[in-house]
Amino acid sequence: MALFKSILSAEHFSAEKMQKVNLFESPHFFCDLYCLEPGQEQKQHAHANEDKIYFVLDGAGTVLIGTEEKSVGQSEICFAAAGLQHRLKNTGKTRMKVLVFMAPHPKYDGK
Amino acid sequence: MALFKSILSAEHFSAEKMQKVNLFESPHFFCDLYCLEPGQEQKQHAHANEDKIYFVLDGAGTVLIGTEEKSVGQSEICFAAAGLQHRLKNTGKTRMKVLVFMAPHPKYDGK
Repeated sequence: MALFKSILSAEHFSAEKMQKVNLFESPHFFCDLYCLEPGQEQKQHAHANEDKIYFVLDGAGTVLIGTEEKSVGQSEICFAAAGLQHRLKNTGKTRMKVLVFMAPHPKYDGK
Repeated sequence: MALFKSILSAEHFSAEKMQKVNLFESPHFFCDLYCLEPGQEQKQHAHANEDKIYFVLDGAGTVLIGTEEKSVGQSEICFAAAGLQHRLKNTGKTRMKVLVFMAPHPKYDGK
């Protein structure tokens, strides 16, 4: 795994659905780049034991955390603690890029 | 703890030394904003059990990971796995802002 990466060269969009591009991972966490075309979303869900951060790099949309939904744009960062329902939507007219950090890594959780 | 924050309103610089502004934390991780005036640095160190991500938001500098030191700028992201020596320096002429993720949170590690 490379130690240094550029977000710009990692981005990958698809007309079919939101794309998740993994940047780094370990048993402790993963760091992904989510790429959403206008109208695409990550559906509402929750993780029993994992905390998640959304950091908006480009574009505009909405983030739901628990029962609170807010409009978010560039340079805004959101924290969905373990157990809280959360959802991400690109409600803007341009592509949306979001840096995502989750800890611990669900693949290794409890192992 | 607020669930939604703006990086822009969180930044805090000091002529004395690099500033660390905590954005979010849990037993699984912390997420900080590091604010470096030109010439400021986070000195070389390592964490036995924690992984760290540096994501450069603004400015330009160098990041050392293990034995590899690179010039980094906006939109570049770096991964210092547990055990690896790492260092961050603002070698540019402007302020440097770096989003930092660490997992697990060292304060809770092993407790």
